[in-house]
Amino acid sequence: MYDFAAELFPLNRSITGEGVRQTLKMCSDRIAEADGVGFEIKNVASGTEVFDWTVPKEWAIREAYIEDESGNRIVDMAVSNLHVMGYSTPVDQWVDLDELKEHVFTLPDQPDIVPYVTSYYKERFGFCMSQKQLDSLAPGRYHMYIDSELFDGNLTYGELVLPGESDEEIFFSTYDCHPSMANNEVSGPVLMCELIKYVKSLKNRRYTYRFIIIPETIGAITYLATGDHLKHMKEHIVAGFNISCVGDDRDYSIVHSKYADTLADRVLLSVLKSHTDGKYSDYSFLKRGSDERQYNSAGVDLPVVCFCRSKFGEYPEYHTSADDMTLISPEGFQGGYDVMIQVVDALEYNRIYVMTQPCEPQLGKRGLFPTVSKKGSYDAVMAMMYFMTYADGRNDLIGISEITGVPVKELTEIVDKLYANGLIKIL
Amino acid sequence: MYDFAAELFPLNRSITGEGVRQTLKMCSDRIAEADGVGFEIKNVASGTEVFDWTVPKEWAIREAYIEDESGNRIVDMAVSNLHVMGYSTPVDQWVDLDELKEHVFTLPDQPDIVPYVTSYYKERFGFCMSQKQLDSLAPGRYHMYIDSELFDGNLTYGELVLPGESDEEIFFSTYDCHPSMANNEVSGPVLMCELIKYVKSLKNRRYTYRFIIIPETIGAITYLATGDHLKHMKEHIVAGFNISCVGDDRDYSIVHSKYADTLADRVLLSVLKSHTDGKYSDYSFLKRGSDERQYNSAGVDLPVVCFCRSKFGEYPEYHTSADDMTLISPEGFQGGYDVMIQVVDALEYNRIYVMTQPCEPQLGKRGLFPTVSKKGSYDAVMAMMYFMTYADGRNDLIGISEITGVPVKELTEIVDKLYANGLIKIL
Amino acid sequence: MYDFAAELFPLNRSITGEGVRQTLKMCSDRIAEADGVGFEIKNVASGTEVFDWTVPKEWAIREAYIEDESGNRIVDMAVSNLHVMGYSTPVDQWVDLDELKEHVFTLPDQPDIVPYVTSYYKERFGFCMSQKQLDSLAPGRYHMYIDSELFDGNLTYGELVLPGESDEEIFFSTYDCHPSMANNEVSGPVLMCELIKYVKSLKNRRYTYRFIIIPETIGAITYLATGDHLKHMKEHIVAGFNISCVGDDRDYSIVHSKYADTLADRVLLSVLKSHTDGKYSDYSFLKRGSDERQYNSAGVDLPVVCFCRSKFGEYPEYHTSADDMTLISPEGFQGGYDVMIQVVDALEYNRIYVMTQPCEPQLGKRGLFPTVSKKGSYDAVMAMMYFMTYADGRNDLIGISEITGVPVKELTEIVDKLYANGLIKIL
Repeated sequence: MYDFAAELFPLNRSITGEGVRQTLKMCSDRIAEADGVGFEIKNVASGTEVFDWTVPKEWAIREAYIEDESGNRIVDMAVSNLHVMGYSTPVDQWVDLDELKEHVFTLPDQPDIVPYVTSYYKERFGFCMSQKQLDSLAPGRYHMYIDSELFDGNLTYGELVLPGESDEEIFFSTYDCHPSMANNEVSGPVLMCELIKYVKSLKNRRYTYRFIIIPETIGAITYLATGDHLKHMKEHIVAGFNISCVGDDRDYSIVHSKYADTLADRVLLSVLKSHTDGKYSDYSFLKRGSDERQYNSAGVDLPVVCFCRSKFGEYPEYHTSADDMTLISPEGFQGGYDVMIQVVDALEYNRIYVMTQPCEPQLGKRGLFPTVSKKGSYDAVMAMMYFMTYADGRNDLIGISEITGVPVKELTEIVDKLYANGLIKIL
Repeated sequence: MYDFAAELFPLNRSITGEGVRQTLKMCSDRIAEADGVGFEIKNVASGTEVFDWTVPKEWAIREAYIEDESGNRIVDMAVSNLHVMGYSTPVDQWVDLDELKEHVFTLPDQPDIVPYVTSYYKERFGFCMSQKQLDSLAPGRYHMYIDSELFDGNLTYGELVLPGESDEEIFFSTYDCHPSMANNEVSGPVLMCELIKYVKSLKNRRYTYRFIIIPETIGAITYLATGDHLKHMKEHIVAGFNISCVGDDRDYSIVHSKYADTLADRVLLSVLKSHTDGKYSDYSFLKRGSDERQYNSAGVDLPVVCFCRSKFGEYPEYHTSADDMTLISPEGFQGGYDVMIQVVDALEYNRIYVMTQPCEPQLGKRGLFPTVSKKGSYDAVMAMMYFMTYADGRNDLIGISEITGVPVKELTEIVDKLYANGLIKIL
Repeated sequence: MYDFAAELFPLNRSITGEGVRQTLKMCSDRIAEADGVGFEIKNVASGTEVFDWTVPKEWAIREAYIEDESGNRIVDMAVSNLHVMGYSTPVDQWVDLDELKEHVFTLPDQPDIVPYVTSYYKERFGFCMSQKQLDSLAPGRYHMYIDSELFDGNLTYGELVLPGESDEEIFFSTYDCHPSMANNEVSGPVLMCELIKYVKSLKNRRYTYRFIIIPETIGAITYLATGDHLKHMKEHIVAGFNISCVGDDRDYSIVHSKYADTLADRVLLSVLKSHTDGKYSDYSFLKRGSDERQYNSAGVDLPVVCFCRSKFGEYPEYHTSADDMTLISPEGFQGGYDVMIQVVDALEYNRIYVMTQPCEPQLGKRGLFPTVSKKGSYDAVMAMMYFMTYADGRNDLIGISEITGVPVKELTEIVDKLYANGLIKIL
């Protein structure tokens, strides 16, 4: 995953344009390697009305720099995509230092690094650099040069639906509109590709799985507003996950759905508790910030949570040049991946199981219980005993984990054993 | 308010009689100043059966004192109304010190001040003085003199109903049966008069407002037991507030309704939290003591809470001569008034709002959102974003405040803005 | 109770056999002393299928010892029943020390005491001794001798149903399958006998009471699986109590039902809180271990909690020779008995009471309220006032105790007073 992230990192992504299309193509190729099944790439034309919004013009950018009178390039997009404000209009103008400063964004509190800035819905231009660099500029004339274009084109996204036995759907969403930043957000598409490979590998898949890679906010709105997506999703989605910032190795985070009461909340919480031994960050919806906003918005009301390692907005490198390939790691990706596949497994197993007859069964005659009873000897089968008590028709598997504290992962093994012995059935 | 309180303070109020009538007249005149609309003054005859109770005889008192053999008046009602026990029967008798003591009430733990004592339902007489004064009395003969009368008359109360668009009612109750004590209870009628002026000033009032000034306990029972009050109130009242002890400036208090789950609890709690920044006292119904007792009693079951500054029974001057005009202040009244009008505003605005279309609207094009997105820049509109998410048909305005922590006061401004932009409607 | 426990202590009980029958006979005789009504003794034949289990063979044991080459008896069942593993098959064999050790159970962490070990469902034999004694054995030859028999016989239990006005039932269960251990479990049958005498003494008993003394686990399963017990109990039992370890004086414990939400949980919790002034141990169902397991199992789902003084598995002497007559005491029994009869009383009184008219009644005219109102004077009747507020049709008596903190015991006295005054009725 880390290597694939390194390939995606240099592309200059925005909410539209070539960077997005290249990213989608590379992701699609990656998941299609084994079976030829990649993302379906969809285009929505600029100017399309999407609820309260309009699909914006497409942005193309070829070159952007500031040079001084000696021809030295102070900043250059060729060095870092972050040096030019996203959706900058073209400019070719010599100005003095004071006027230049009106078009430069910095982070005074983090003077060594370059911020990430965009202006999608108001036409303007701008550059980004470190505060230190700005402070070092001598008075004089500077050449602001941006060779960009805003034109009627398309908003592009990728979609993949993997059918299962049921038409109930599990939904995963991530976004591809950020240029050269690693955790936020090369990591989301990378992890999703790996997760798709895992879901493809599941035999007798119970649920249908829907995956989308879209530009943040306007992409999610466009997706919900076009076709019959919203109606279909409200009818079919039982749990959804926005995946963002899943490449670093410092934390695990859940951002809850707006009432924190959906299956998505329950399953991710359950997996995080056992996977991290309780050491994860639990954010209420008031700390939301990514596309869980649209999925939970009034009138959409989908059961969607957000999963992160270190959550956007909570780590100092967020939305700056310091969110680079050194911030993420193979270990970071692996941890995020392990959580997501446990979530999938837990959902696939999450049924209401009931015992096939009253009272505790005789585990001993099935080799499931020690035959000599002495002090402390049956702790080993306690998890199974717990499961059997609460397999009474009132709880799903995640519910039994919530009550007993036994991780879903262990409960799925118990389910398999009791099934094999004819002791449980599905309600 | 403080000046009006000073005018009411000297009157000798009890559960019946001239003091009550004068108080009601002064209150009525005050609210009628601008528009001629004052309280309707109602009389219920002594002997009327009111549920388990009987309206008592009316009490008139002209003079009361104890004098010693030299003709010095030890205590005299002319100095303080508290020196004579409320509802004392007449007496004109010389006794020695020991017998006198059988008729004198003091506060041994607060030896400098005079207690407030009444005997409404058993005919007897008594005097009150400080423990210090009692201790200083020399052996000898004392003249107990009370010129009072108990006779068939009326229990008197004031009622005002201000109609609104809806026949659903907001109810305010306070009491006027305490003689010369300032916080408990000159302050309640004074604040209610000011609140009535505010409610009168509301254009397009949504709710109907019912205000009563009654004697405590027997008055509330009488009100509930006569006419169709109880039936009408059970059908129409959506939130009620007993107002008591609202003139001092030391605390803000809520005494919850018996299950702490009514609209009255929710709105007062919500206002107190933001108005006091969390520094208020939260009393369960087990600490109730005033007319919220009758309104919450079994068979009445109205959604009524009690609002106080320093709560009755919780401040040392309560029911003593130390509850005088120095205990209350203009600042105390203002704080209580500010809370009550916020309660009214919150109720008037408390509807279930829903967004007019799915997904977050584009605030930017309406000048409601910064167009340059950079680190931390949209904290300013967070409250609006929160509101819009939870304006999904599941919450009233107070509910959104409870979930998001944004004060109702700020939410009402957001409601106005979103309305003006056509982004919300009332469910 | 302590003396009766001392009589039962020496008997060699197991899940079947003469020890059980003798115990049941002695219990039955004890409760029948006054009125001739004892337990009905029931037999279920070995080999009977009971849900997933089979009623085991009956076990008879006559002699069991280990002797050394000099004829010294190392351990002897005649000294303590615990020296032979329960359900040991016969053996008569000389072995060397190493082989002997394969058949000896000890407690290495508690080297001075002898463990209690059984092997009900796998045929084998074994001895128990202290670790110290085992360590002291010299190399050499040892004679393992057990004169026992496993044969088709019966599982025996005792049952008593005391009818009341209603066919709703209160259920008590305890077990009699442990040999010579005092708290666990001579104490349970002893306390149940005393409780039966109390229930018999209740005039106009509201509920029907069902008491059973059975062997643990297999007995409870057998009881539930035979006759129409399960169906009948699911239809009639409103609260049930498994009684175990009720003879020591160190703690009071509740083990909750599996969702901790039944009438049994509520009543026992309520009594424990007031009886112990909050100093009791509150175990979730995850700490269950006795027959509450079967009663709460999936498909049985009865409202049964477990009551203990020091809970099984939580005190160091549990399932060892140290659980002897010095561990329990008359005071221990008395405390357990006091709790159980309060539970019965609370259930008998636990109705939904409602006031006969709105508003607080006038307590004064009934001599229930002080007529002089002064600071602090009416604390004494607060409990009654609380009761009357919440006697509004929404709460049963235990519910009012939960809300107000007034012990049920005190509330029952209030109920009697208000009844006598015509102020309440049963909903």
